[in-house]
Amino acid sequence: YRTGYMEAILAEGKEPEDIVEIVKAHNEAVGRTLITRINEEHASAIRNAFKPENIEWDMHSRTAVVHDSTPVPRTGGTVAIITAGTADIDVAEEARMTASEMGCSTIQIYDVGVAGFQRLISEMSVFEENRPDAIVVAAGREGTLPTVVSSLIDVPVIGLPVSIGYGAGAKGEAALLSMLQSCSILSVVNIDAGFVAGAFAARIANSVAEARKKEF
Amino acid sequence: YRTGYMEAILAEGKEPEDIVEIVKAHNEAVGRTLITRINEEHASAIRNAFKPENIEWDMHSRTAVVHDSTPVPRTGGTVAIITAGTADIDVAEEARMTASEMGCSTIQIYDVGVAGFQRLISEMSVFEENRPDAIVVAAGREGTLPTVVSSLIDVPVIGLPVSIGYGAGAKGEAALLSMLQSCSILSVVNIDAGFVAGAFAARIANSVAEARKKEF
Amino acid sequence: YRTGYMEAILAEGKEPEDIVEIVKAHNEAVGRTLITRINEEHASAIRNAFKPENIEWDMHSRTAVVHDSTPVPRTGGTVAIITAGTADIDVAEEARMTASEMGCSTIQIYDVGVAGFQRLISEMSVFEENRPDAIVVAAGREGTLPTVVSSLIDVPVIGLPVSIGYGAGAKGEAALLSMLQSCSILSVVNIDAGFVAGAFAARIANSVAEARKKEF
Amino acid sequence: YRTGYMEAILAEGKEPEDIVEIVKAHNEAVGRTLITRINEEHASAIRNAFKPENIEWDMHSRTAVVHDSTPVPRTGGTVAIITAGTADIDVAEEARMTASEMGCSTIQIYDVGVAGFQRLISEMSVFEENRPDAIVVAAGREGTLPTVVSSLIDVPVIGLPVSIGYGAGAKGEAALLSMLQSCSILSVVNIDAGFVAGAFAARIANSVAEARKKEF
Amino acid sequence: YRTGYMEAILAEGKEPEDIVEIVKAHNEAVGRTLITRINEEHASAIRNAFKPENIEWDMHSRTAVVHDSTPVPRTGGTVAIITAGTADIDVAEEARMTASEMGCSTIQIYDVGVAGFQRLISEMSVFEENRPDAIVVAAGREGTLPTVVSSLIDVPVIGLPVSIGYGAGAKGEAALLSMLQSCSILSVVNIDAGFVAGAFAARIANSVAEARKKEF
Amino acid sequence: YRTGYMEAILAEGKEPEDIVEIVKAHNEAVGRTLITRINEEHASAIRNAFKPENIEWDMHSRTAVVHDSTPVPRTGGTVAIITAGTADIDVAEEARMTASEMGCSTIQIYDVGVAGFQRLISEMSVFEENRPDAIVVAAGREGTLPTVVSSLIDVPVIGLPVSIGYGAGAKGEAALLSMLQSCSILSVVNIDAGFVAGAFAARIANSVAEARKKEF
Amino acid sequence: YRTGYMEAILAEGKEPEDIVEIVKAHNEAVGRTLITRINEEHASAIRNAFKPENIEWDMHSRTAVVHDSTPVPRTGGTVAIITAGTADIDVAEEARMTASEMGCSTIQIYDVGVAGFQRLISEMSVFEENRPDAIVVAAGREGTLPTVVSSLIDVPVIGLPVSIGYGAGAKGEAALLSMLQSCSILSVVNIDAGFVAGAFAARIANSVAEARKKEF
Amino acid sequence: YRTGYMEAILAEGKEPEDIVEIVKAHNEAVGRTLITRINEEHASAIRNAFKPENIEWDMHSRTAVVHDSTPVPRTGGTVAIITAGTADIDVAEEARMTASEMGCSTIQIYDVGVAGFQRLISEMSVFEENRPDAIVVAAGREGTLPTVVSSLIDVPVIGLPVSIGYGAGAKGEAALLSMLQSCSILSVVNIDAGFVAGAFAARIANSVAEARKKEF
Ligand SMILES: Nc1ncnc2c1ncn2[C@@H]1O[C@H](COP(=O)(O)O)[C@@H](O)[C@H]1O
Ligand SMILES: Nc1ncnc2c1ncn2[C@@H]1O[C@H](COP(=O)(O)O)[C@@H](O)[C@H]1O
Ligand SMILES: Nc1ncnc2c1ncn2[C@@H]1O[C@H](COP(=O)(O)O)[C@@H](O)[C@H]1O
Ligand SMILES: Nc1ncnc2c1ncn2[C@@H]1O[C@H](COP(=O)(O)O)[C@@H](O)[C@H]1O
Ligand SMILES: [Mg+2]
Ligand SMILES: [Mg+2]
Ligand SMILES: [Mg+2]
Ligand SMILES: [Mg+2]
Ligand SMILES: [Mg+2]
Ligand SMILES: [Mg+2]
Ligand SMILES: [Mg+2]
Ligand SMILES: [Mg+2]
Repeated sequence: YRTGYMEAILAEGKEPEDIVEIVKAHNEAVGRTLITRINEEHASAIRNAFKPENIEWDMHSRTAVVHDSTPVPRTGGTVAIITAGTADIDVAEEARMTASEMGCSTIQIYDVGVAGFQRLISEMSVFEENRPDAIVVAAGREGTLPTVVSSLIDVPVIGLPVSIGYGAGAKGEAALLSMLQSCSILSVVNIDAGFVAGAFAARIANSVAEARKKEF
Repeated sequence: YRTGYMEAILAEGKEPEDIVEIVKAHNEAVGRTLITRINEEHASAIRNAFKPENIEWDMHSRTAVVHDSTPVPRTGGTVAIITAGTADIDVAEEARMTASEMGCSTIQIYDVGVAGFQRLISEMSVFEENRPDAIVVAAGREGTLPTVVSSLIDVPVIGLPVSIGYGAGAKGEAALLSMLQSCSILSVVNIDAGFVAGAFAARIANSVAEARKKEF
Repeated sequence: YRTGYMEAILAEGKEPEDIVEIVKAHNEAVGRTLITRINEEHASAIRNAFKPENIEWDMHSRTAVVHDSTPVPRTGGTVAIITAGTADIDVAEEARMTASEMGCSTIQIYDVGVAGFQRLISEMSVFEENRPDAIVVAAGREGTLPTVVSSLIDVPVIGLPVSIGYGAGAKGEAALLSMLQSCSILSVVNIDAGFVAGAFAARIANSVAEARKKEF
Repeated sequence: YRTGYMEAILAEGKEPEDIVEIVKAHNEAVGRTLITRINEEHASAIRNAFKPENIEWDMHSRTAVVHDSTPVPRTGGTVAIITAGTADIDVAEEARMTASEMGCSTIQIYDVGVAGFQRLISEMSVFEENRPDAIVVAAGREGTLPTVVSSLIDVPVIGLPVSIGYGAGAKGEAALLSMLQSCSILSVVNIDAGFVAGAFAARIANSVAEARKKEF
Repeated sequence: YRTGYMEAILAEGKEPEDIVEIVKAHNEAVGRTLITRINEEHASAIRNAFKPENIEWDMHSRTAVVHDSTPVPRTGGTVAIITAGTADIDVAEEARMTASEMGCSTIQIYDVGVAGFQRLISEMSVFEENRPDAIVVAAGREGTLPTVVSSLIDVPVIGLPVSIGYGAGAKGEAALLSMLQSCSILSVVNIDAGFVAGAFAARIANSVAEARKKEF
Repeated sequence: YRTGYMEAILAEGKEPEDIVEIVKAHNEAVGRTLITRINEEHASAIRNAFKPENIEWDMHSRTAVVHDSTPVPRTGGTVAIITAGTADIDVAEEARMTASEMGCSTIQIYDVGVAGFQRLISEMSVFEENRPDAIVVAAGREGTLPTVVSSLIDVPVIGLPVSIGYGAGAKGEAALLSMLQSCSILSVVNIDAGFVAGAFAARIANSVAEARKKEF
Repeated sequence: YRTGYMEAILAEGKEPEDIVEIVKAHNEAVGRTLITRINEEHASAIRNAFKPENIEWDMHSRTAVVHDSTPVPRTGGTVAIITAGTADIDVAEEARMTASEMGCSTIQIYDVGVAGFQRLISEMSVFEENRPDAIVVAAGREGTLPTVVSSLIDVPVIGLPVSIGYGAGAKGEAALLSMLQSCSILSVVNIDAGFVAGAFAARIANSVAEARKKEF
Repeated sequence: YRTGYMEAILAEGKEPEDIVEIVKAHNEAVGRTLITRINEEHASAIRNAFKPENIEWDMHSRTAVVHDSTPVPRTGGTVAIITAGTADIDVAEEARMTASEMGCSTIQIYDVGVAGFQRLISEMSVFEENRPDAIVVAAGREGTLPTVVSSLIDVPVIGLPVSIGYGAGAKGEAALLSMLQSCSILSVVNIDAGFVAGAFAARIANSVAEARKKEF
């Protein structure tokens, strides 16, 4: 592993046999490979090529890890993942698995959108003593939640727009634009880009963790 | 006056002399005319054509009323106007003047966006005993505020997107889309359409006020 | 039930098992739950989880209500639903069921678009003595009908664009834009947002109905 | 003149001196030249290059004709021009002048939009005995009027969207899309394309007029 | 039949059973009904509801006519239909069937796009003696052909963009925009709107034909 | 000062007198206020309201700080700012001033785009021993540079699209989209959002700096 | 064969039987026909109509050549095809087959995007002695590679955007825009237009090859 | 000079003083610098910094060359520049000057769009004996001309869309899309990118010229 960055493959648009080949090469080099946005054909090619005990599946988030049993070295960084609704969970899980593969511990606070505002406050109160190093906030439709979270806590917040909703601004477009226009301090990744959000948050968290370890 | 609807002219795109002529015709019929989205040339044509005591100006919101001294008959309806920031006030004032010309009393709560969330709650507490009949919420950039207000109070809330902000989703586009995608119960008018928001809110408020007056 | 607002779930983007769980929780609290934008898988999960006598289906509008036999308390509010064509009826029915679940009586006037203009006038004549408290007008393609209805009657009119049509401006885009640009007094909800239109209309109608009941 | 088609120059994007030169060449060949979308610099170049008695100006519609005193041969075709509002008149006049230069007589019915619907009906009643050969209908904002006119009379109707309005769908975009999505039988030209609308209508009117003259 | 206009139903977005019902009502009134944009389910509902001898199918253009054996009265008008490529023919046929149902004779010149330019010239030479009253030109991709045709002949030309092509401007968008920007005299209908193009052309042709018949 | 976050005002869309008032209130509370996107009128209102020694101007980046002489407490965090071209420098400077106001030291590497690739490598070699805690990369036109930087160094990189370029994708649109689609690990802020980029980078840098200071 | 240009058919949007007919006509005239963007139905129509030994398939790139055994005359031109990732290879192969059918030799350098930058340099070092006459660079997502290649070598580079990626700017839109905005000297073809890229590159290569052959 | 590529500066978005500085540095290195998209302030900064005899202006195309009297070495390549209208000439001249600075001779054929089709054919007849090595075709509005030219001659044709026209598809958008969708073999540059078109054409022409010179 390069520090803070694992090998990852975007399966979408690739032939199943190409993926198997790339995974084999990667694993030889680094021991574990994360594969994202898998479809059914990709999944069965992977199933045929590797032993079950070397694969970790998460078909909801269309993500898998193929490894040769080496564990991920833990970095000490912490990433929190928050979602506005239950429909945002699949994308959030892609972010969470990515951060986890990059050595971070992860905290989930799911389904605390506008309607669950009270619950958001109470769930986040746990952060008062125990701040995460970075927070990913996944939200679809009007994409309000990252703005609210960033105004409540002084930790780097990454907005992750989710492709739900219908009509004008659907498929995450309103969420993306409203995160880009936010009055809070946010940075943003592309719609459904759980991988990028998780990897970016892990880069931050791993930097902070490394700084924590520095001796004097 | 037709009940609940005053005469109004959209100045934009019209010749100054056409506006003067239309105002004269309207005033003859109904005694007062609201003119919106006035530019400098429109304003001086109006100044030349009518006596100062017959004009009420609001050049910030680019709005004027020309009247023959007949007052607006009060309907008993109440419309609240809330803005997220100070930059939203001009458009909000167009809505307020329109509702006022349609006979409603108006309540203003300005500059209570995400950063001023605490103040929003405390300002809105006045509504607990004294509910407005309709609420217009003006917001630019990410346009979050109408969603929040509608989740806090069970009154019809009209989202009014404002053309501020820069970059992707600027000029009210993100605000409009995010109000259309809102998870709360909202209806929406076009970007900067203070007149439509105010008139629609007044239609609601005047209906409620009329119902209140019904004898048994 | 909180006054004027029932519990509702947007099924789209959610897992069938999540929906069943959410419905159960809601029903425990409030006795009835409206579920919108259901697909086949959602439907069969609901069918398996609840007794037939506790479900009201409307698969055309992809809507269901799951209840524990408590009836909806009637508020006395009235909402009219008008459509331009027959293709707009599914979305209109989502609005109607929502308003009905919120305690309103509903009036339907369907398929009275530009070609049926004469019929629109004659159907609406019934309103002269018996005004609805709010009107939802569903229209696709060029979306003209809400503009016409709002110019004929002084009741709050909510434009509901429908995702039909082909070519440029298809899928409700022309309808939405032309409602936002309307010369009449209209507020608008998102394309196909029958739920929002119905709930917003019911908020208005229930306010008016409450005012009617006020004693002196 | 080629039958049914006069020489015309689009001034926009051209240097003033180029325009003068092109006009001179055209006039030598055909005696009259129509120039559209003129700005101030174009106008003064024309003023300096030709005698006042050889220029017909219409600076509202930014149009001019330069001629060597030869009159336009009348074809016997008739084109009606209808506008929704007063803000549509400039573009409508460009259409009217073009049709007139192509030999047609023209009929104007201006400012009969949704609010003036009653007046539209009564004005159009003159057509019952005296049908125009083609109708251009100019409308901005939601662009409803061409749809209504085409549903009332069985004459070819050309929709001419006008670049007014503000917010989403402004600058004629909503009008164009809603004309393209119209449920009536319409053809359409580009936003503000008064010249194209007028010339196309004249092509139709001149064909019909020619057919009328055919001997047996 | 109203002169120059037959009854037509847009099947898309309608339930099969609704279509059968509407056809029956129409046929009772006017003897023939054109149905456009039919899918497989619509087709089999029609097949079950009417006798084979009363249906004319054109499944390529997804169009049918249901009639009670009354023939279409011929008007004497002539409409030509030209296509750029073979992929444009389905949409062109919808236009042709519509014009034919409206009583016009039709002329087809198919597959004469840029590459077949020579053939276009030679095919169109037949028009020198025998001009059609209106021309529909269907083209996808860059949509050049209507511009070229209109510059070659002084007959009203209606541009009909076709939803083919891939990449930016695909699905007829480039074709529509380039027809709207054309330097020739063109009017335009929406992408794939064969029905509107055919009906509009027939309105023109029937006007001209009527003028031809006028006695003196 | 709240840790890691100074007060900032977005001047755009606000009246000059409102800005002065807000600055005064902020300064009373926190001693320094950053004002961004100032125009000429804002600038002269500030000049009239405060003493020269209490204002720091940067009119290139349209930014100012008004303070009561209290210095910014240094946090120990480090933010690097890289630009692709010279035209990106104004926006980059807004980011740099913001990070500096939030207590970070800043490093500038300007004008090292594709053409200056060699220079980029050599300039960045300084980072080998002395890594910044976060990097902002400003780029317009095709927006390539953040992708390249993020692939060269394992530090959180924030893409800052700049509104330069002409034609399709101009005004930063291509740059924003290409950063969102990047194959490297990037997060992004809106076009020209120098303030957000700088503040977000400072949040990261200040977290890392705080971790460095933690005792054991 | 016309020099430098073979016959080619775009299958998309055409009926299988039409394709067979067109191929037969072409082959009679020129001996070989290239068919692009074939679907399964097109493929089996071709399989039924021609002998296996007269067809060359490439179903990955959805391309086929049908010939009467005449070989392609070699021109001496050379075209290099480079891809950023493995997902770009199908489109790249369409370009390569086209250039090959036009008589060029082709060189492939695949999967050398940002991550493989080192490999790009070393692979391209072969060009130092042996320059291709034109280079096609296929890239999806952020579309950076053509910009980098064009800055490294002074040969005409054609950017070929590929429709991969998800979220904003997906389906090749970001890649197309960023190639159009490139700071290097590039020309561009439409998204997935492998045929156009290959044919254009071959036109260049064949011109250069012809010049090489010129005697003195 | 690097072979086939002169130094060029895009002035737009740069400070006048920065431009002067960059020109000086470039000229020291290579003797001549091309500056494109100059505004009035840039021009006067250049006028003040360099002697008149060292500047070549073309303010119509907003282009200048600053040199130290060294002439451009001629390569023997030939580039033709064709425009559809007179409004396309400024952009075309930017292309021509760029190709000329890169050592090519240039041929101009201006104002030969659809209306001037006959003249196009006759002007291009000169190419029969004397082919240019590359052709740039500039066109606005519907952008047809490059498609036509490329179908008439087997030379690499580069489409150069020009930002003229009004309404939908204006500012070169229709032209760009229709060139990307062209049925002929075209490559394209961005709207108004005269510099890129000229430099790309010169790269081709210089390759061909070099091949012509190769000895045997
Ligand atoms: N789901 C994803 N979304 C965006 N980028 C991804 C995703 N998964 C992997 N990547 C990135 O894409 C790179 C691999 O691209 P590829 O070589 O096409 O597999 C990885 O190194 C990641 O940086
Ligand atoms: N394919 C079509 N495209 C556009 N409009 C159509 C089409 N077919 C029928 N129409 C029009 O739509 C009207 C009927 O719409 P509907 O009542 O929804 O069937 C007809 O009177 C026609 O004017
Ligand atoms: N240039 C800027 N771009 C985006 N956001 C800004 C900018 N300057 C200030 N802000 C944010 O906007 C908030 C202030 O908004 P306002 O109350 O409208 O002045 C600040 O707290 C910042 O979070
Ligand atoms: N008008 C122009 N349009 C596009 N690119 C240009 C233009 N003028 C110069 N360039 C390119 O932009 C590069 C210089 O960019 P810059 O360093 O910002 O001056 C030059 O090397 C050219 O490749
Ligand atoms: Mg959300
Ligand atoms: Mg806001
Ligand atoms: Mg409609
Ligand atoms: Mg209108
Ligand atoms: Mg075509
Ligand atoms: Mg850049
Ligand atoms: Mg790429
Ligand atoms: Mg052109």
